[in-house]
Amino acid sequence: MRNMRLEIQYDGSRYRGWQRLSDSENTVQGKLEKVLSIMTGENIEITGSGRTDAGAHALSQTANFKTDSDMSIADMLKYCYTYLPEDIVVKNASEADLNFHSRYNVKAKVYKYVIYNDTFHDVFLRKYSYHIPEKLNIDAMKKAAALLLGEHDFIAFSSVKPGKKSTVRNIFSIDIRRKEKIVEIEFKGDGFLYNMVRIITGTLIETGLNRMPVDHVSRILSSGDRTLAGPTVPAQGLFLIRVDY
Amino acid sequence: MRNMRLEIQYDGSRYRGWQRLSDSENTVQGKLEKVLSIMTGENIEITGSGRTDAGAHALSQTANFKTDSDMSIADMLKYCYTYLPEDIVVKNASEADLNFHSRYNVKAKVYKYVIYNDTFHDVFLRKYSYHIPEKLNIDAMKKAAALLLGEHDFIAFSSVKPGKKSTVRNIFSIDIRRKEKIVEIEFKGDGFLYNMVRIITGTLIETGLNRMPVDHVSRILSSGDRTLAGPTVPAQGLFLIRVDY
Repeated sequence: MRNMRLEIQYDGSRYRGWQRLSDSENTVQGKLEKVLSIMTGENIEITGSGRTDAGAHALSQTANFKTDSDMSIADMLKYCYTYLPEDIVVKNASEADLNFHSRYNVKAKVYKYVIYNDTFHDVFLRKYSYHIPEKLNIDAMKKAAALLLGEHDFIAFSSVKPGKKSTVRNIFSIDIRRKEKIVEIEFKGDGFLYNMVRIITGTLIETGLNRMPVDHVSRILSSGDRTLAGPTVPAQGLFLIRVDY
Repeated sequence: MRNMRLEIQYDGSRYRGWQRLSDSENTVQGKLEKVLSIMTGENIEITGSGRTDAGAHALSQTANFKTDSDMSIADMLKYCYTYLPEDIVVKNASEADLNFHSRYNVKAKVYKYVIYNDTFHDVFLRKYSYHIPEKLNIDAMKKAAALLLGEHDFIAFSSVKPGKKSTVRNIFSIDIRRKEKIVEIEFKGDGFLYNMVRIITGTLIETGLNRMPVDHVSRILSSGDRTLAGPTVPAQGLFLIRVDY
């Protein structure tokens, strides 16, 4: 038995997200499992580091699966490249320890959210960024972001319903940088709740447009009230950059 | 009467190229003329700096049209942004001298060709680059490119049939640079024949793959024989960067 670890890049535009739903739904996990099952002649189920939203992208998602196949890694990569749709590529594969688990062993996840900040959108980035025509105040956004660092209950910045599962997460860093007309917000944390990166981004944009005072962000956090935070920005600007173990 | 000059960005993936063909054909010029005609209430014909191939892109194509409309430039830009498809954007407009002509007045054109040079293609660049899995020898390509600089009859590097029109062009520069896995070839010249950038690129790639000796390029040039040059690489990697006047 081998435990294969994969690093997967995908353009999420056409997909209902990472996680397999019914067989008829177009998901990245579903596409991968179909190809890997035919490749190995086994009924392959893969474990991803976590879900990504419908329409969100990945530069490097990690997943693993167990197989009795003795196919070489180079042949696996070639097979996947040939039979997967052109918007999903397995960039790397390696044999992991048998108890490696893509979700349980995550140490950190890194996401970025891409904003195109100019009067008109860029035609080449239209599927890979969110368009904000009004000039963003990056300094205000940086100050607001700093208030979210560390361990907090982020339920106000999520689409999670209150329940038994912990909504406490630790954000290690939020880096905001402007390169000409592109504003990128990079998040690193031990994990993110459903829609958390998109709602934090929507809230930071409110501060960057001077529609929300910077210190309001702390009040949203302590309120636990989703309705006080900014909007959930579109998934097309969201990229899972990598998962650290 | 005003002579409006436009700078247009487009993703050429969906189009049969710049130049208007029949009304039923999907072309960038056709789309623009339709929107500008409704905007002005006139029958607008635009003049572009030249054609771009089906599937090729533009970061900044220049075109002009004459109109009696007194609409402000800001309103024109907004109108175009609202009514054009999302893969065509008029980035800038200005009022030019009445005798400014987008094609006759060209001093130089700048194109780039984008190659993704790694084992597997990048999912985000699949529509905006050409995939070459074998590592390119950039030094050989630079030496071959140097042999093409200056004024020559480029008929061997074009899909033009011999005729009355001159096939002499002047290439001012060809810059080849690698940024990690992306190889970009930037061409500046007084004009380029039909398919010339794509055939020169196809030939440079042959030298970069060590399939063609560098000095063979001079022999192709003097032969005037299209069959000796490399293949016409796909239009998806080709970008018109800008037109100088």
